[in-house]
Amino acid sequence: MAIELKGLTKRSENYSQWYNELVVKADLAEQSAVRGCMVIKPYGYAIWEKMQQTLDSMFKETGVQNAYFPLLIPKSYLCREAEHVEGFAKECAVVTHYRLKNDPNGTGVVVDPDARLEEELIIRPTSETIIWGTYKNWIHSWRDLPILINQWANVMRWEMRTRMFLRTAEFLWQEGHCAHATAEESQARTVEMINIYARFAQDYMAMPVIQGVKSANERFAGALNTYTIEAMMQDGKALQAGTSHNLGQNFAKAFDVTFANKENKPEYVWANSWGVSTRLMGALIMTHSDDNGLVLPPRLAPIQVVIIPIYKNKEQLDKITATVLPIMDELKKAGVSVKYDDADNKRPGFKFADYELKGVPVRLVLGERDIENDTVELMRRDTLEKENVPLEGIAQHIEQLLEDIQANIYKKALDMRQSRTYVCDSYEDFKARIDGGGFFLCHWDGTTETEELIKAETKATIRCIPLEGDKTPGVCMVTGKPSAQRVIIARNY
Amino acid sequence: MAIELKGLTKRSENYSQWYNELVVKADLAEQSAVRGCMVIKPYGYAIWEKMQQTLDSMFKETGVQNAYFPLLIPKSYLCREAEHVEGFAKECAVVTHYRLKNDPNGTGVVVDPDARLEEELIIRPTSETIIWGTYKNWIHSWRDLPILINQWANVMRWEMRTRMFLRTAEFLWQEGHCAHATAEESQARTVEMINIYARFAQDYMAMPVIQGVKSANERFAGALNTYTIEAMMQDGKALQAGTSHNLGQNFAKAFDVTFANKENKPEYVWANSWGVSTRLMGALIMTHSDDNGLVLPPRLAPIQVVIIPIYKNKEQLDKITATVLPIMDELKKAGVSVKYDDADNKRPGFKFADYELKGVPVRLVLGERDIENDTVELMRRDTLEKENVPLEGIAQHIEQLLEDIQANIYKKALDMRQSRTYVCDSYEDFKARIDGGGFFLCHWDGTTETEELIKAETKATIRCIPLEGDKTPGVCMVTGKPSAQRVIIARNY
Repeated sequence: MAIELKGLTKRSENYSQWYNELVVKADLAEQSAVRGCMVIKPYGYAIWEKMQQTLDSMFKETGVQNAYFPLLIPKSYLCREAEHVEGFAKECAVVTHYRLKNDPNGTGVVVDPDARLEEELIIRPTSETIIWGTYKNWIHSWRDLPILINQWANVMRWEMRTRMFLRTAEFLWQEGHCAHATAEESQARTVEMINIYARFAQDYMAMPVIQGVKSANERFAGALNTYTIEAMMQDGKALQAGTSHNLGQNFAKAFDVTFANKENKPEYVWANSWGVSTRLMGALIMTHSDDNGLVLPPRLAPIQVVIIPIYKNKEQLDKITATVLPIMDELKKAGVSVKYDDADNKRPGFKFADYELKGVPVRLVLGERDIENDTVELMRRDTLEKENVPLEGIAQHIEQLLEDIQANIYKKALDMRQSRTYVCDSYEDFKARIDGGGFFLCHWDGTTETEELIKAETKATIRCIPLEGDKTPGVCMVTGKPSAQRVIIARNY
Repeated sequence: MAIELKGLTKRSENYSQWYNELVVKADLAEQSAVRGCMVIKPYGYAIWEKMQQTLDSMFKETGVQNAYFPLLIPKSYLCREAEHVEGFAKECAVVTHYRLKNDPNGTGVVVDPDARLEEELIIRPTSETIIWGTYKNWIHSWRDLPILINQWANVMRWEMRTRMFLRTAEFLWQEGHCAHATAEESQARTVEMINIYARFAQDYMAMPVIQGVKSANERFAGALNTYTIEAMMQDGKALQAGTSHNLGQNFAKAFDVTFANKENKPEYVWANSWGVSTRLMGALIMTHSDDNGLVLPPRLAPIQVVIIPIYKNKEQLDKITATVLPIMDELKKAGVSVKYDDADNKRPGFKFADYELKGVPVRLVLGERDIENDTVELMRRDTLEKENVPLEGIAQHIEQLLEDIQANIYKKALDMRQSRTYVCDSYEDFKARIDGGGFFLCHWDGTTETEELIKAETKATIRCIPLEGDKTPGVCMVTGKPSAQRVIIARNY
């Protein structure tokens, strides 16, 4: 039996509270003194770093290079693209002054009224505008294209209701911004990037996702089309985990970015942008974790194996350590990250609970009897199953086990999603069942009116028009009008 | 003979202009639309990424972990530490509002006066305050210490005069913030980190540095002591390349961070902080580059070897390519980054000049005759020397050559610094010679008055009190008062 962790709310009792508590108890993040902004703690940041490294090399394999653009955007830039300003200019952090001075009426400092900026600057909510303002000077001829650039950065959106990782005023992300000579190339890149996100979600996060296109309502402000990956959390709600936008020529027109094509005629440049953020941390937590704490996929776990010695005196510990060290060497050589926790100021029971809480995929426990028997007690975090395994060949055993765990938690999440995905043809039925969560495959007439009606009446939205699967036409479950194919409707984070 | 690059000012004509032009022409960075903020272009960012990766693993080897703290700092936080607020609160970006709205009198958007923040937020100029405000909740007992945390982040200081990489309003950096139970431990960590910076500068940037302690005047605002590494640029000016601050208990007192020591008595926590920034890019450029462009140390060069084919037709190119591919494989296996530039829309002469400009350490040129002779023309960027070398064993030859170049440019920079470091005992002599640049080893009476006099009269400052070298006491060259040891005085960036 796993030791039950005191104080973590059960998912079945209050899923939302379970999540909030887990983020803090597993040492991933905490609220900061600044409204809506979080502190990402070392253990949480180590997971994010693994995500970053993996995504970064996936991007680079496709020819993308990193660069860095300014944090602050002139207010007038945001207004250049009509839809974009509606989507982003409203709730944002505005820099109006560049100096403080000693308070003439007391202690402390006040804003110096003489240091008012001529034009206010906005902390980037996303960087299309500043980047396309820059690309204008980089692009002259078709020879300058494509430009395939990504940036790892912080961004701010002054959200009213925030939740750690899922929706914070400041968050970390990557934003790719590509410029192409043709619409076809830009569309191909838009799809290529959502494919990469899907592959990352599935292969590394062990999180099954559905790829699809957003309805007009849910599209990025300024995009022709938004591609998305949608995942199902354990409460049956959808989480948008990554998006890739085909921006057409909208930003090129807004910033007057043209190139001389092969016929030497000026043409507007074609654009796309794509991003994932620290929101993925929220998705990771909510996909796999359980009432004992985090369950991390081995490929993203900062510590893959923890080894805990059970001993009564230094002599016993030395004997155990002598056995452990060569195992650690072997594991490290195989690229497995391993931690030996021989700290003597914490009891084994505390350590067990703590590493369970932190989602370390494999735990080894070694006592004197194990050494005598040439065995070790091994527990896998995903199932909490324990077994005694021979020390001989333990490294290979663990390597295989880590792969099994990775595959198993993926399958578990996929099974969960499949068991909670419903084909639904009646709006009455839909309304009766939506409180129970899940993905509903429904026919929809393609209008914003119907979409908004569904949202107003049920708080559910069209998550995406899936790219794969059944494409049979039908009739809208709300209006009875023709529908091109089923879409996924769900409540969402 | 190397092809002379058109349009790059010579160092001897105008060093400052040479630098500004080189940053742009070598595609490292450019000015953005936001005053004092730059865009770091992919080639420049690739060098920065190599710096980051190297430093990051050096930090982690000493037990440091990464984390992330908020971008915005409540105004009141800055005022908690008296010296700190004087140093940082004055020239900074101030967020006063969190919303824009459509302009009621026309088009565009204006700041919504109803969305004024109760307390203004400052874009971090450095994060001691927000981090120590956070550590207060993390530290209770000696068991919680040490905390060894680093953050990679952007920061802003509203500098009046900016220069790309050297002094920009926004810049990228890392800032380490450690908390310790004893003054000794904190001091040891302060020194450990400046040692790491020195090792990085010397072993990776091939940049000799002098380690020393700052005078009170040049100390970090809020520190007991600031350690620095100082490098000499080719114009004889000093550049402060990294600093490590022993903060004593100042920030713990300002934020009331205490811990129960082993005797269970409350004690203030001991702090240090340490950082390097994209300023290192400026140092790298100015240490090695020449009138033909960048000279990059092989260990930080994004492309270490470029191969350029010389051909008249496809048949010739195919033959060359067939020879090149196995060489590339061999180099890649040895961890050498290599680029084969067979683009047919640029002439070889253009490519030669371009890769010289970008500082690629080794260039191979292959034509038909080379293939017949089983040789290749090799040029090393540091000396611009060419030689014909056998294709047989070329990969090993290059591996060795890259090490030679790394060592050679270090030696060149060290020789330059030594030839321009002067022992000087007369203030008159000093004043006569300071315009010529260089490091002056002078006796100083240790007072701020004398330091400020020197600065006012000569624009030179005390760069540091060196840790190594001659420690013989003497008399101040300005006042004739006693001096504990010689210090380094120079003009600086």
